Amino acid sequence: MPQRATTLPALVLLAVAFAGGALDCPSASAAESAAFVRARDLGVPFDGTPGPLNAITDVAGVLVGHTTLIEGNGKLVVGKGPIRTGVTAVLPRGMASLQQFAFAGWSTENGNGEMTGITWVEESGFLEGPVMITNTHSVGVVRDAVIAWRVAHGPADATDSWWSLPVVAETWDGWLNDINGFHLKREHVFHALDTAHSGPVEEGSVGGGTGMICFGFKGGIGTASRKLADQYGGYTVGVLVQCNYSGNSRQNLRIAGIAVGREIPGKEPYTGLVSDFAEVGSIIVVVATDAPLLPHQLKRIARRVTLGLGRCGGISANDSGDIFIAFSTANPMASQVDRVVDVKMVPNDMMDPLFTATVEATEEAIVNAMVGAKDMTGRDDHLVQALPHDRLRAVLAKYHRLLPTPTHQ
Amino acid sequence: MPQRATTLPALVLLAVAFAGGALDCPSASAAESAAFVRARDLGVPFDGTPGPLNAITDVAGVLVGHTTLIEGNGKLVVGKGPIRTGVTAVLPRGMASLQQFAFAGWSTENGNGEMTGITWVEESGFLEGPVMITNTHSVGVVRDAVIAWRVAHGPADATDSWWSLPVVAETWDGWLNDINGFHLKREHVFHALDTAHSGPVEEGSVGGGTGMICFGFKGGIGTASRKLADQYGGYTVGVLVQCNYSGNSRQNLRIAGIAVGREIPGKEPYTGLVSDFAEVGSIIVVVATDAPLLPHQLKRIARRVTLGLGRCGGISANDSGDIFIAFSTANPMASQVDRVVDVKMVPNDMMDPLFTATVEATEEAIVNAMVGAKDMTGRDDHLVQALPHDRLRAVLAKYHRLLPTPTHQ
Amino acid sequence: MPQRATTLPALVLLAVAFAGGALDCPSASAAESAAFVRARDLGVPFDGTPGPLNAITDVAGVLVGHTTLIEGNGKLVVGKGPIRTGVTAVLPRGMASLQQFAFAGWSTENGNGEMTGITWVEESGFLEGPVMITNTHSVGVVRDAVIAWRVAHGPADATDSWWSLPVVAETWDGWLNDINGFHLKREHVFHALDTAHSGPVEEGSVGGGTGMICFGFKGGIGTASRKLADQYGGYTVGVLVQCNYSGNSRQNLRIAGIAVGREIPGKEPYTGLVSDFAEVGSIIVVVATDAPLLPHQLKRIARRVTLGLGRCGGISANDSGDIFIAFSTANPMASQVDRVVDVKMVPNDMMDPLFTATVEATEEAIVNAMVGAKDMTGRDDHLVQALPHDRLRAVLAKYHRLLPTPTHQ
Amino acid sequence: MPQRATTLPALVLLAVAFAGGALDCPSASAAESAAFVRARDLGVPFDGTPGPLNAITDVAGVLVGHTTLIEGNGKLVVGKGPIRTGVTAVLPRGMASLQQFAFAGWSTENGNGEMTGITWVEESGFLEGPVMITNTHSVGVVRDAVIAWRVAHGPADATDSWWSLPVVAETWDGWLNDINGFHLKREHVFHALDTAHSGPVEEGSVGGGTGMICFGFKGGIGTASRKLADQYGGYTVGVLVQCNYSGNSRQNLRIAGIAVGREIPGKEPYTGLVSDFAEVGSIIVVVATDAPLLPHQLKRIARRVTLGLGRCGGISANDSGDIFIAFSTANPMASQVDRVVDVKMVPNDMMDPLFTATVEATEEAIVNAMVGAKDMTGRDDHLVQALPHDRLRAVLAKYHRLLPTPTHQ
Repeated sequence: MPQRATTLPALVLLAVAFAGGALDCPSASAAESAAFVRARDLGVPFDGTPGPLNAITDVAGVLVGHTTLIEGNGKLVVGKGPIRTGVTAVLPRGMASLQQFAFAGWSTENGNGEMTGITWVEESGFLEGPVMITNTHSVGVVRDAVIAWRVAHGPADATDSWWSLPVVAETWDGWLNDINGFHLKREHVFHALDTAHSGPVEEGSVGGGTGMICFGFKGGIGTASRKLADQYGGYTVGVLVQCNYSGNSRQNLRIAGIAVGREIPGKEPYTGLVSDFAEVGSIIVVVATDAPLLPHQLKRIARRVTLGLGRCGGISANDSGDIFIAFSTANPMASQVDRVVDVKMVPNDMMDPLFTATVEATEEAIVNAMVGAKDMTGRDDHLVQALPHDRLRAVLAKYHRLLPTPTHQ
Repeated sequence: MPQRATTLPALVLLAVAFAGGALDCPSASAAESAAFVRARDLGVPFDGTPGPLNAITDVAGVLVGHTTLIEGNGKLVVGKGPIRTGVTAVLPRGMASLQQFAFAGWSTENGNGEMTGITWVEESGFLEGPVMITNTHSVGVVRDAVIAWRVAHGPADATDSWWSLPVVAETWDGWLNDINGFHLKREHVFHALDTAHSGPVEEGSVGGGTGMICFGFKGGIGTASRKLADQYGGYTVGVLVQCNYSGNSRQNLRIAGIAVGREIPGKEPYTGLVSDFAEVGSIIVVVATDAPLLPHQLKRIARRVTLGLGRCGGISANDSGDIFIAFSTANPMASQVDRVVDVKMVPNDMMDPLFTATVEATEEAIVNAMVGAKDMTGRDDHLVQALPHDRLRAVLAKYHRLLPTPTHQ
Repeated sequence: MPQRATTLPALVLLAVAFAGGALDCPSASAAESAAFVRARDLGVPFDGTPGPLNAITDVAGVLVGHTTLIEGNGKLVVGKGPIRTGVTAVLPRGMASLQQFAFAGWSTENGNGEMTGITWVEESGFLEGPVMITNTHSVGVVRDAVIAWRVAHGPADATDSWWSLPVVAETWDGWLNDINGFHLKREHVFHALDTAHSGPVEEGSVGGGTGMICFGFKGGIGTASRKLADQYGGYTVGVLVQCNYSGNSRQNLRIAGIAVGREIPGKEPYTGLVSDFAEVGSIIVVVATDAPLLPHQLKRIARRVTLGLGRCGGISANDSGDIFIAFSTANPMASQVDRVVDVKMVPNDMMDPLFTATVEATEEAIVNAMVGAKDMTGRDDHLVQALPHDRLRAVLAKYHRLLPTPTHQ
Repeated sequence: MPQRATTLPALVLLAVAFAGGALDCPSASAAESAAFVRARDLGVPFDGTPGPLNAITDVAGVLVGHTTLIEGNGKLVVGKGPIRTGVTAVLPRGMASLQQFAFAGWSTENGNGEMTGITWVEESGFLEGPVMITNTHSVGVVRDAVIAWRVAHGPADATDSWWSLPVVAETWDGWLNDINGFHLKREHVFHALDTAHSGPVEEGSVGGGTGMICFGFKGGIGTASRKLADQYGGYTVGVLVQCNYSGNSRQNLRIAGIAVGREIPGKEPYTGLVSDFAEVGSIIVVVATDAPLLPHQLKRIARRVTLGLGRCGGISANDSGDIFIAFSTANPMASQVDRVVDVKMVPNDMMDPLFTATVEATEEAIVNAMVGAKDMTGRDDHLVQALPHDRLRAVLAKYHRLLPTPTHQ
C-alpha cells in the first residue's frame, strides 16, 4: 500500500512548514517534497499565467497552515480510529488578520455543507480572521478553538469587539476517517494557525483535505494562481480548494475538457453507501486577491467559482456542500472604526480579467488536488485510488490535449 | 366632494415645481400649497431631528418630479377612465445621475411587486439613473421611456454602456384608477423627469401616489428626513414613500405607537374585492443619504425600512409589494471606469445613527403621505377617505401622545 | 441582591422540566414557578389570541429544554468565572426530529451573529434536528455535541446521510458571564436535549438566555403563541426568543407602542464597553407552526419577525445578530427519500393571518423575556436590572395603555 | 450576403408555427425548415438522452412562440432601422398558464440584465403567466403588452388578483439592431403569444434571439432536452436559451470540451465598441420540467445553469446579464387559493439526475443556438458570422471528439 503513514506507531501530526519554523516531522515532509508533482508538471494544459508559486500564497500576505492526522488501520472503532483527517488554516494577512480585517464575499452553488461566520461576512463585508477548513463533524471544535487562539493573542479587535464569529468550513471524510470519533482537538487547530506560512503549499492528502475524495479518486487540498498582465492591473488571484467534490463519480471528471475518468478503470469509493445515481462530496474554495475589490465585488468573484466547477464536469449534487469565500488583501485600513475610511475599488468594468483568473485557477486547483494526492487506505480498509499520472497523460494524449514537459518526454 | 380635479374638463397634467421652472397648473399648485399640512403640524410626535425641509430633498442633489393624471368620474370604462394615476421621478444627482452613478442597495420585505433594474443594482452596486414610481400596469411604458429620455440627453454613460436597465417600481391604484386603460404615456414620464426639482416635495395624491390607499385611508407620496448630529457625521437621511400599504386595514395602523385607526370610524376601501382577512396594497420606499456608504451598507440601510413599517403596525401581507432602495450621493466619482477609484466609507461601527434615522424617517414619511392626502373619488365612484386630522389629534390626545403645535392649540 | 443562585456553593445545573422527568434542582425550580409572571399578568395589552400556554409548545410536538449554568461571583478570572450562561434546545417533533425533518426557512435582519446550519436549511428546505441557542463562544461545542447526541441515538437519518449540519445560534453574554472561559460542555448540551419537554416554558434568565440583556434591562428567553380562528385554518404559531436585543438602549424600548424605557430611570449595562451611540446585543427567534407551509413560505414567516422587532422599537444595530428560523410541524413525511412525496400547502393567499400571528407573538415573546427575568449580578459585579413590573404598569397607565388584571387591581 | 431577409421590401413578421395555425410567411419558414440543422446532426457529442424533439417543448404543455422583425439595411438611422430584433414567448401550460400558475425559481450568475417579475417569483414560488424574452430596450413594451393580453383573455386569475407582474427578460442586440428605435410593438407581443405552439422550436436568429451574438459568432435561440430513465422518475427537462453570451470572445468558446473558437479564424463583432479584454453579451435561460419540484427546488435547478455555462467556457463577464428561471408543469392545482393544496415533491435525494439533465441541456441548447444561426448583416453593415459547420467539425475531429453522423460521413 503506498499510503505514507501507516507504519507510524502513534498519532502523527504532520506539520507543513515549507517556508520556516521547526518542522514536526522533517523526514516525512522531505519525502513529500521529493514527490511534489503538480498538474502542469504532467503536461495538463491550462489557460492563463500563474504566479511564481502557482498557489494562493502568491497573494502577498496570505499564509497557509495544515495539521494532518493519520493514525491506525483496519476496522472502524468509533473513538479509536482509523484517523484520516486534519485542519487547514488560511490567514489573509498573517497575524494582522486579527486586527486588520479583509473585505470579503461568499457564495454557494449547493449548500449541503457548513461555513460558519458567513452571515456576518455577508452583512459586514469583512472576513475577521482566518478561514479554517476541516471535516464535517469537527467544525465546532475548530470554531471555538479559533476564538481561544484569538483571545490568547491579544485584546479586542480593531472594531473594539469582544466577540468572534470565526469562519470554519468543512467537507466529509467519513469513508476513510473515524469522523464520529472526534479526533481533532483544540491543539491541532492552534498548530495549523501557528505554523501557517507563506511559500509553497502542500497539496493532496494534507490538512483538512487528508481524507477527501474527488471525482472517484483521492482528493484533498489543491491550489493555483493567476497573475494578470500589467495593463489589467497586474493583480494576483490565488485559489485554494478542499476538494471532496463529486466523490463517487469518475464519469463526470473533465480535465482539459476531456472526460478522462471514463477511460481510467478502477474501483470507485463509497461502495454501499450511496445509490447508483447519487453523488456525494463537497468542495470548499477560498479565493484570495490583492486587487482592491469591495465586498459586493468579492461576492461576484466567489460566484465565478461555479464556472470553474463546470469546466471540471461537476453537477453540484444534492449531497454536495459547495461553498466559496473570496477576500481581498488590499485596503489594509478598511476596518478602521473611528473615522471615515478611504478605500480603493477596481471599477466593475475592469473585473473581467479577475473573473477569468478565478475560473481558471479554480479549475487548476482542483486538478492539482488530485494530482498531488496518493492512494489512501482508511477505516474498514477502504481504499481510494489516486488519479494515476500515467493514465491521465495517456488519455490526454489520445485527444491531442497533452503538452510536452521537461520531466515527461 | 373635496376632490380637487373633478371639475376639469380634460386631462390635467399637474406638474409639481415648487422650486423652479414654469408651472403647468399654477393655480392648482397654489391651492395645494395653501393646504400643505404635515404630520408634525398636527402635533404627531416623532423621534429624531429632521432636516430643513423634512424631505428627501434635504439630501443635496436629490430632485423629485411628479406627473399627476386626474380625469373623469363615474363608471369605469376601460380605456376611457376615470383616471387617477401618475408617475414620480427621484434623481439622485440631478442630470448628473445619467453619468455619475450612485452606490445603491435594495431590499424587500414582501415581493408582491415590481422594481425593475434591481438585478443590476444588486450585482454592480450602482443605481444608474433615476428611480421611477408609478402604477402596476404602467411600469413598462415608464421603463422604456426612461431609456428614450436618456438617449435624448446624450451619449453612452460613463461606463461606456450603450444600454440601460432603468429602475421602475409600482404600487396598484386599480380601485380608483382605470389601470387597464394604460393612460400613462411616454410624455408623462418625460415631464416628471424634466420638472424634477429640489426644495419641498408635494405629498399625498400626487405623482405615482395619486390613486394610492394606505391603512384604509387615502395614501400616496410622503417624505421625511433626519439630520445627524455632528459627532455622528452630520449626515442627512431622506426617505420618500409611495404608500399603498395595508390598504384595507385601519385596524393595523399605528401612529406614534397608538392604533389610531381602530378609533376612527368610516368605510374602508376595496369593498367586494378582497376577503375579510386579506390585506392589499404595497409600499415603495426610496432612501437617500449623503453619508459615504458602500453598496453592501446601503443594502443594510434598505433593510431597516421594514423596522419603520413595523412601527406603523404593518404585517407586509401576501398581496403587498414592499420594495426598498437606498442610495448614496457621496462618492460622485465612484463610477469611473478607467482606473482604480478612491472611495470613502463610513465604518460599520458608525452606522447605528444612520439606521435609526432610516427607521424614524420611514415612519414619519408614511404618516406624512396620509396626512398630506385628501379624500378622493375614483372609478365607479369609489371613495377613499383621507385620514381626518381632527380625529387623529383627538385619538393621540386621549393617549397623551399629542404634542402642542403653533397652529393647533 | 435578588439574584437567585449566588448562594450556591458549586456549579448549579438548573434543569427546567415542568412537564416530566426528574428535576435536578427541584427547590430552585419550585421557587421559580412561584414567581412565574408574564406580560399579560401585568396588564400589558397585546393583539390576537394566544394558545393555551401562550408558548411555542402550543405547537404540538415542539419540546423545549434548558441547561442553566450559574456559578461564582465577583471579579472575572477567565476560566474560573463567574459563570452566567447556558443552552436551550428546541425540538420540532421531539425525538422524531432526528428522522422526520421539518420544512424550514430562515431570515436575518442584521447578521452580526451565528446560526450554523442555515446554508443547508436554505438549500434543502429542511431543518434536520433541533435548534440550539447558546452564548457566542460556545456555538462550536454545542454544534459538535448535537452530532454526538444524534450518533448516540441511532443510525443515519431518513435521508441515509451519515453526517449532520446542526443548527446552533447564539447571543453574547460576556458582560455577565466568563464567556472566554468556555464553561459550557458537551454534557450540558445533552442535558438540554434530554430534558426537553412540552408544557410551559421557563422564561427570563434561563438556558441560553441566562446572561442576556435586552433594551437596557435583563433579557433572556421569552415565548408566546397565537391560535388562529377556525375560518383561518385554526393553526397555531409559536415563537421563542433568546433576547439580548438592543442591550444598552432603554431609549428604544416600546411596549404596547409606548417608549416605556425613557420613563424608567436606572443605570444601563455595558458601561465602558460601548460608545454612546452604538447599540449592542442580538436576538435569535424561533417560529414554530403546525400550518402546512412550504420552505419558501416559512422563509416569508421568518422575515416577518423584523416587523415584530419594529413594534418593540428596535433598529437592529450594527452589533446585533438578528437571525430567525421558522419551521412547520405539518407534513411529517416530507423528508422521505425514496419516492415522490405528498405534501400539503397553505395557499399564499391564506397566509396573512399567519403573518399577523408571527408579528404579534414576536412582540409578546420579547416582552415576556423581560418580564420573566430578575435582576442579575455577574462578572466583575456587573449588575443588570430587571424591567420593574410596577414601573412598567405605571407608565402604561399614564398613557391609558394598561389593561385591568386579576392580580393587579 | 447569406442573410435571409434582406430582400424583403417591408417589415417582415416571421411567425414560427411549425406545429399548427396559419403561417405568416410560409415560404420563408419552409426555407428555414429545409436548412434546419442541429448540433447533433453535425456530430457534436453530448452526454445524456434527449427527449423526442430535443427541445423545451418535450415538456408536455410548454408552448413557444416567436415574433421576428427583420427590415432594412445599411447605415443606422435611429427610428428607421435597420431592424434585427423580436420577441419570444414561453408558456408553461399553454393558455392555462394565466390561471394555473407554475411553481418556479430563479437564479442569476451575473445580473447585468433584466428579468422583470422575479421579485414575486421569489416571494410566491409561482410563475404567473408566460416568460417573455426580447431586446434590452423593449422590455417595457413587452411587459405592459403581456398585461393587456391577459386582460383581453379573461377575468382575474385564480388568486383573484386583478394585477399582473409579468416576467420579461432581455439581451442586447444593438450591434445589429436599431435598438433605440423601439421597433417592437404591442401587436408583435400578441403575435408571439398567440402563435405559441408545441412541437419543434425554431432556433438561431429568431424571436428575441434575432439580433444576438454568442462567443463571437451569430447566436440567438437554442433549445435541448433530457429524458430521465424510468428508475429516476422518467421526467423530462427542457431548456431554452436566448444566447448573446460572451459575444465578442471566440477565445472562450468550448464545444465538447474543446476551445474550438481559437481555431476558427474570422472577424469578431463589436469592433470599436468594447475594450480588448472586456466581454459583452448575456444569456437568458428558461428551464422547464414535468418533475414535481417545489419552488426552492426549482431555484436549485436554475442555479445549475451556471455549470452548463462553465462547460461552454464562459466567465459571465461584467457586462453579461445571465439570468435563469426554472418552472415545473407538475402540480397543476398548486395555485388554488381557497383551500389547503395537495402537492407532490421529488425528494431532494432524487434530484441529481435532474441537475445533470439541466447542465447537459443547457450546454447543448447553447451550441444549438449557434449551429442554428446563419450569418447576419445588420445596422451599419455590421456582419456577424455564423459558426461554420465544417470548421467546427474539423476542429472536433482533430481532437477525436467528432461523432459519425448519417448526413456527414
